[in-house]
Amino acid sequence: MGGDNGPQPVVVGAAAALALYPQIERLFLVGIEGELRSHLNGLPYDPDRLRIVHASEVVTMEDRAVEAVRRKKDSSLSRAVDMVKEGEADAVLSPGNTGALLAAAQIKLRTLPGVERPGLLSVMPSRVRKFVLIDVGANIEARPHHLRDYGIMGEVYARQILGYSNPAVGLFSIGTEEMKGNDLIFETQRLLRNSPVNFVGNVEGHDLFTEKVDVVVADGFTGNAVLKSCEATARVIAHWLKEEIAQNPLRRLGALLAKGVFNDLKKKANPDEYGGAMLMGVNGICIKAHGKSSANAIRAAIGVAADAVAGRVNDFIVEEIQLSHEKNHAPHPAPATAA
Amino acid sequence: MGGDNGPQPVVVGAAAALALYPQIERLFLVGIEGELRSHLNGLPYDPDRLRIVHASEVVTMEDRAVEAVRRKKDSSLSRAVDMVKEGEADAVLSPGNTGALLAAAQIKLRTLPGVERPGLLSVMPSRVRKFVLIDVGANIEARPHHLRDYGIMGEVYARQILGYSNPAVGLFSIGTEEMKGNDLIFETQRLLRNSPVNFVGNVEGHDLFTEKVDVVVADGFTGNAVLKSCEATARVIAHWLKEEIAQNPLRRLGALLAKGVFNDLKKKANPDEYGGAMLMGVNGICIKAHGKSSANAIRAAIGVAADAVAGRVNDFIVEEIQLSHEKNHAPHPAPATAA
Repeated sequence: MGGDNGPQPVVVGAAAALALYPQIERLFLVGIEGELRSHLNGLPYDPDRLRIVHASEVVTMEDRAVEAVRRKKDSSLSRAVDMVKEGEADAVLSPGNTGALLAAAQIKLRTLPGVERPGLLSVMPSRVRKFVLIDVGANIEARPHHLRDYGIMGEVYARQILGYSNPAVGLFSIGTEEMKGNDLIFETQRLLRNSPVNFVGNVEGHDLFTEKVDVVVADGFTGNAVLKSCEATARVIAHWLKEEIAQNPLRRLGALLAKGVFNDLKKKANPDEYGGAMLMGVNGICIKAHGKSSANAIRAAIGVAADAVAGRVNDFIVEEIQLSHEKNHAPHPAPATAA
Repeated sequence: MGGDNGPQPVVVGAAAALALYPQIERLFLVGIEGELRSHLNGLPYDPDRLRIVHASEVVTMEDRAVEAVRRKKDSSLSRAVDMVKEGEADAVLSPGNTGALLAAAQIKLRTLPGVERPGLLSVMPSRVRKFVLIDVGANIEARPHHLRDYGIMGEVYARQILGYSNPAVGLFSIGTEEMKGNDLIFETQRLLRNSPVNFVGNVEGHDLFTEKVDVVVADGFTGNAVLKSCEATARVIAHWLKEEIAQNPLRRLGALLAKGVFNDLKKKANPDEYGGAMLMGVNGICIKAHGKSSANAIRAAIGVAADAVAGRVNDFIVEEIQLSHEKNHAPHPAPATAA
């Protein structure tokens, strides 16, 4: 209910997802029943697999996160998270208030065993394939073991959802050399080196979008800064391109002939294609779709949620975090003795 | 001597700068004399205004910053900074090892009165005009009063070098709302509100390149991450554009007709045009040009150095920092009393 464009794109995207993903047993639309029904009206969908769950309140984009969760107990956002908590659903998806969704998920679902602070993961296009950036803003007071856990969770996502066999995990810093960074970076390097992931060391801004790294680990402040700065750069370049093309008829003709270039580029850079941001480390699958998500973006994000359930992402996270704890707390190996 | 392309582009850029900027009284080329002379050979330049200063050593890109300054006392980098320290030159410019230049400037020139930590300022293109980002990596352990000083120094740059009348100063955070950020952000907000600059509050990645802000203040870790991420985004988009254009003959023809679009865009996004990064807050003008600077980039950076001297940038910084200290330490105004 609380996305920038109301429930319409969510309803349309949900109907499309049901048709496209047979592995989804049941899809719940949570919100004001009358509104949801009116948007469903006339859409082709499988009524056996779609349920409407009424919720009387709406969390707005202006609501304060924790307050919204505490006060609006019958909001679509709260109710949807409740369904995951109660085991009625495996995953929750919302294009609404990010802070409120993160708060609801953390308060109601709690974290996975061994995880202290969840991290928000964003999928981004790269030169040849996609890469993930974690955390893009859930935890702005990251400590080294939080970042280590983000490396593990990002690696599981890249393996189980993107299908990469041995994803390269890098730690975002201000230079690639080991000594470039601050205390948070140095201590995290040590933890990641001792973790089960394929740690490739520090990466910097210039390494984004290259083959060098599949999982970029950052504290939430830096990750948020990086994600939004990349988006802003793409936007200003698109703006300049349009401006330059409009300059004279020859350019306009050229652009018309090369129209496919711009359409394909737009598609490649379009966050709609990337299935929203997943909150990694909570006990349940929780996806934040962009507030302005189109029906297609919602459909893609539902697909990612289904993949995360099928790929048992959270089981793998718990297992790897456990492994990593054992490795870090294990006593030094005893010296070999003659038999 | 220590730039990625050696002294050649520096020598060519210097000769061009002399021709273009009559306000430059004298330009010193510091380095291995024989090499510099051989590059000067055949170039048109004004010999009365150009001097070669021999320095026998070269700081490489691999040298550790502080060590390079301490050990290679006769490097071109050290000698050039020495000349500013001794008052023989007003400004120093180098495309060499960034860390070494920053260390040499901080150790030899010291900071301006009232400034605790210098900050590196980068000029970036925007939708309509340029904006500045400070700090892009000189100080990765920023405290609130450092960031306040960056706001003041960035404002002076925007006013005196870019010619903006009342530049808007924003504080980079993870959202525009006042409560979005961490303790560093909250305390800096308070200091900037009490400073002489036109403080517009928090800005986030999405505000970059917009009319909203002329001076973006960030801690060195975040600023470095943002700068390099923007550059990487521009690079990957250029890569995709080329890839998409190569797809078929129609696209190639269209791109050929619209060639001017790409050339103009390249020029707009080219850091060469922006005159390097200035280290703000040291007692002297110090500019770091990109390691791969072309002769044209060097020429532009020399122009910025000349503007900084003519615009008395450092005098204004000292004055405004002083003002801001007085404002912050002034006792509360006494209640008005009847005469």
